[in-house]
Order: sequence, then C-alpha cells, then structure tokens
Amino acid sequence: MKTRDRILHTSLRLFNEMGEPSVTTLFIADELDISPGNLYYHFKSKTDILEELFQQFEECMYSILIVPESEMDIEDLWFYLHLIFENIAKFQFLYKDLVTIMAKYPQFEKRFQKILNTKRKASISVLENARKNERLHASTDEIEALTEQIILTTTFWLSYSSVREGQVADDALARGVYQVMSVVAPFLEPERRAMINGLKDAYL
Amino acid sequence: MKTRDRILHTSLRLFNEMGEPSVTTLFIADELDISPGNLYYHFKSKTDILEELFQQFEECMYSILIVPESEMDIEDLWFYLHLIFENIAKFQFLYKDLVTIMAKYPQFEKRFQKILNTKRKASISVLENARKNERLHASTDEIEALTEQIILTTTFWLSYSSVREGQVADDALARGVYQVMSVVAPFLEPERRAMINGLKDAYL
Repeated sequence: MKTRDRILHTSLRLFNEMGEPSVTTLFIADELDISPGNLYYHFKSKTDILEELFQQFEECMYSILIVPESEMDIEDLWFYLHLIFENIAKFQFLYKDLVTIMAKYPQFEKRFQKILNTKRKASISVLENARKNERLHASTDEIEALTEQIILTTTFWLSYSSVREGQVADDALARGVYQVMSVVAPFLEPERRAMINGLKDAYL
Repeated sequence: MKTRDRILHTSLRLFNEMGEPSVTTLFIADELDISPGNLYYHFKSKTDILEELFQQFEECMYSILIVPESEMDIEDLWFYLHLIFENIAKFQFLYKDLVTIMAKYPQFEKRFQKILNTKRKASISVLENARKNERLHASTDEIEALTEQIILTTTFWLSYSSVREGQVADDALARGVYQVMSVVAPFLEPERRAMINGLKDAYL
C-alpha cells in the first residue's frame, strides 16, 4: 500500500476507535511509524485527511442510496438496511461525534444534510412503493413520521449503542436493522410481520 | 444572584449555545465580566463546573422519571413527554455532544447509563400498564422494541434536529413528542390514535 493510502487507512481506524477529537496528526504518524514531516508531505493537516475520508464516505453512501426500481420484500429490505448500517459503521467516527464534528468542520454540514435528504427520499420511495402494492397500510402522515424515525434510527443507532454499553457491540448492526424494521412492522400484514420475527430469530 | 450561581447559569447557557467543546473557563469569565482568578476561586476547572451541572441534570431527570401510579391517558402522556424533552433541552449540551462528552469525562458515563436505564424502566412501566388496561395491544417483544425506540428518540431528537437544520428549531420539542407518540400509535385503538392527531394539529 502507498504511504498516502496507509495514512488514510490508519486515520480512519484511529478515528473510529478513539473518536475524531482525540486523534492528532502526530498520533497518526506515530502509529504508522513515519515522521510527522512525511505525513505532512501527503496531508497538510488533519482537516485534509478528514476531507478525503468524507469524500469516500459520500461516494459509499450515494452508491447505496440509489433505491432499486424493483419491489423489495422483507428479506431484501433487511439486507439493504444492513448494507446502510455497514457503511455507517465503516465511517462511525462521523456519526458518533456528529454534532461536535459538524460544529468543528462546518464545511461538512451541508454535505451531511444532503445525505440525510437523499436517505429521506430513498425511505419515502420504498414506503410509497410498498403502499402502492398494498403491502404497507399507512397514511401520508404516517409515512412521514415513519421516515423521520427511520432516518433518526439509522443516524444515531451506533451512538446510542456506544453510550448505552460503553462500546459498539458485535451485534449492533443487526440490532439496528431490527429496530428500523420494528417501526415499520405495525403497518404490514401479519404474514410480513412474521417474516421480520423470523429474521430477528435468525440473526439476533 | 451570587457569583457562584451566575457562573453556573452562564456556563450552562454558553455550553448549550456553543457546544461544550468550544467553551473555555476563560471565555466564561469574560462573558461574566469577572477575572479568571475570581472564577477559579469558585471552580478549580471546567470539569468542576460540569460536575455541578451534571448533578443538577441528574436531580431534574430523576424527579421526572418517577412514573405516576395512576393510568395516563394520551393527553397526560403528551405533557409528560414534553416535560422530559424540556429537561433534555435545558441540558441540551450534554445530549448534542453526548459521545464526545462521555469520552472526555468518563466519570459521567455510568451515571448517564443509569439515567437511560431509569428511562427504560419508566417506559416499560407505562406501556405495560396500558397493556394491562387493554389500551395498548402489543407483545412483549413489541414493547421491548418500542421502549428502545422511545429511549433512542428522546436521547437523540435534539441532535437530529440540530444536524438536520443547523440549529434546534422552536418547535423541536413538540415535534419530538409527536415523533415518540407516532411510534406508539399503531398499537393503540383508533380512538386514541385520533387523539394523537388532534394534539399534533393543536401543537404543531
């Protein structure tokens, strides 16, 4: 791996493990066993490293948030949500210190809001589709409240897990998926609610 | 007001407005127009100020989280939740930078977890009561998932609002209450769901 990529890779790991506020460029250089000058040759500051990682995060999220045209059934949805949670976990440092990071690096704020909006559109599109196909029974108000709940849960589930248990547990992602599904469940037919419980028993 | 109380009062306001990580004791002294030495006479460090504010927060939360013995109807629940959100808003700096603050001041972590547990017990008690009185139709699994969703939503609603809109909007508390109620609504009789919509129309 090239030095530049090693810096990005190690920075991401350290940010995720220790929280972005606790990691300095000096610490990153030390962990990589390179001189601060060498790190500085590739990245002028921690902000430059964050900028590059944030771009990677954006690319990952936008590539996932393209909702498949075809109808998704419960199992597809479970795996789709799991994929979203995996990407959030990959960049969990952003989510765990979200308000702090947005205040410290205001250049990311609008871009993060845009991702939230894309998530919102994806969620509404999936729910409206399910309603059209009579798999979901919910009013427009209910779909709106559901969407808020889905965005809130995907955004803060890892923070919640880490505060509640002092760390992100191994099954945190699957639990997050189940939690999102449990919000939608009451609006589905009994048959599909049973599928959710089956997936819960299989993965939790 | 005594200097000591003025320091606490102003610190709380500044933490809430600017975020705890951006506020120094020097800034607090400056805002109060007192010398750093005078502030230091009352509080040896920012941590001492935070300790006192955290105690106030704990007292507020524990006094609210005693669930009334009597059955609460939809309107009581709405106001009870509003009271909880008001207290969270009063100490919003804790919630907005939650993961950051818990990492920086580990002495608060277990105490915050204890509050989350007390919230969990309060929520389960209210939901189980409603089930006993046949006002709520939910399985034990559903009550558990509902409780997680209620704790997650009360804990992170203000962070979510502030990230989504760049600030905590005026109607954020009422929106938070509605959001919690909307998660419980599908498990209620149509009559009570209509009451929630009535309260939404009145307060949002």
